[in-house]
Amino acid sequence: MNSKPIGVFDSGIGGLTVVRALTQRLPHENIVYFGDTARVPYGPKSPQVIREYAAQDVEFLISRDVKMIVIACNTVSGVALDVVMKHAKVPVVGVILPGADAAVAATRKRRIGVIGTIATVNSKAYSHAIRLLDKEAEVFSRACPLFVPLAEEGWTHHTVTGLVAKEYLFPFKLEKIDTLILGCTHYPILKDAIRTAVDESVTLIDSGEATAVEVERILDEKKLRNPSQLKPHLQFFVSDLPAKFSEIGERFLGQKMGRINKTGEFHL
Amino acid sequence: MNSKPIGVFDSGIGGLTVVRALTQRLPHENIVYFGDTARVPYGPKSPQVIREYAAQDVEFLISRDVKMIVIACNTVSGVALDVVMKHAKVPVVGVILPGADAAVAATRKRRIGVIGTIATVNSKAYSHAIRLLDKEAEVFSRACPLFVPLAEEGWTHHTVTGLVAKEYLFPFKLEKIDTLILGCTHYPILKDAIRTAVDESVTLIDSGEATAVEVERILDEKKLRNPSQLKPHLQFFVSDLPAKFSEIGERFLGQKMGRINKTGEFHL
Repeated sequence: MNSKPIGVFDSGIGGLTVVRALTQRLPHENIVYFGDTARVPYGPKSPQVIREYAAQDVEFLISRDVKMIVIACNTVSGVALDVVMKHAKVPVVGVILPGADAAVAATRKRRIGVIGTIATVNSKAYSHAIRLLDKEAEVFSRACPLFVPLAEEGWTHHTVTGLVAKEYLFPFKLEKIDTLILGCTHYPILKDAIRTAVDESVTLIDSGEATAVEVERILDEKKLRNPSQLKPHLQFFVSDLPAKFSEIGERFLGQKMGRINKTGEFHL
Repeated sequence: MNSKPIGVFDSGIGGLTVVRALTQRLPHENIVYFGDTARVPYGPKSPQVIREYAAQDVEFLISRDVKMIVIACNTVSGVALDVVMKHAKVPVVGVILPGADAAVAATRKRRIGVIGTIATVNSKAYSHAIRLLDKEAEVFSRACPLFVPLAEEGWTHHTVTGLVAKEYLFPFKLEKIDTLILGCTHYPILKDAIRTAVDESVTLIDSGEATAVEVERILDEKKLRNPSQLKPHLQFFVSDLPAKFSEIGERFLGQKMGRINKTGEFHL
């Protein structure tokens, strides 16, 4: 049982930053990743459609016999956590609750900023999660639609990225936040530009890293840790296979990806 | 028969710039537009997937009893024109051939630039179409992935857009093109920034406008023009209904859109 893989899914490529965080914290866990590249991005889609897609994504991971499921997608975690829990017979972790938890632990002024896709921000998932943990916390949210294509272009240290970050994040200065949640799995790639655009004292919360901490806690609680000390097996599946996936993916993952498998007629 | 609508489809919202060009040139034609917003964007997807989606998009328009089909999407026109023609029993016009034709007519130095999505550029559809018309023409192509999100953000005259355009289009100066095809239906929205980034003497070809000219020619040739002089009926269908569609759409269309209809379970 314990050598079974952890299943991780995302609408596309961004979830690989969560896989990176998982492999750093849990270097002996096997992982099966599914990126729904045929239907990416989920961000601009309606909650109803996202919930249908999420159910199908989970079915795929379940068919790979995973011991746990990580929703490495803020959009899905925000609008379809219940759907995933209903379809999975294994523990489920989304990125929203761990991210909210880490932010509440980090803030001193109880003024927290959240950035993400339009869908994530509109879902108010982070605000609700934060308010559950701290009724008094003030949450300021902002969608940053250009960050995903900038991360995919690899313009991590480009003047343009600096200007875009400054424009999107400027209002947070007036709102005097002291903690900012990177509420989209692409955003850690742009961490340097984001850091420069907010006050130096602001703590950046990478939801992927916070999620890896939560995954470790659950594995220990349920006694599901892989006892093997060997190099783990990482498998990557996508519903469509643009060259782009491996090209950009290795930058997101921080290591070579090896073979990428294409699922069957899943995307239709 | 002639009062039947022209069917227009796109992966999402960009095709509305083609509808705008059509309504300007053919102000009495009824139009049914379908935007596959549940699966947008097609640009990064594989040709095989795009062909499957295109076949479904055409089926939808055929079910609306259209007299003609306009593929208002460069990506689909580039990789699936044959699929659309096979499924449609009515005349079909894509945006690639009219755009290539207009560019060949405009160039004096026979040096033509093409900008589009990664899929359009990789398909080499414009290069092939131009070479069919003029074997000696030299074609220089470049993907501009940030232009679509910039157009959707509405940053048409933003410093950032100017910088991005300068970076993407600078190599065309060295290549000494005199004509540039806007090979993506979003790009007319950024025409001013694009114009500033290339030499003033470069002729910009809006494939949507070129397509409207070709549609008019076919309507006349087949005697399919709508004889009515009344205000035409424009109908809009999408496979998913984010608020974004009408919000951004009116800017693309250049007029109010009225009711937007959602198709059934088409997106699954």
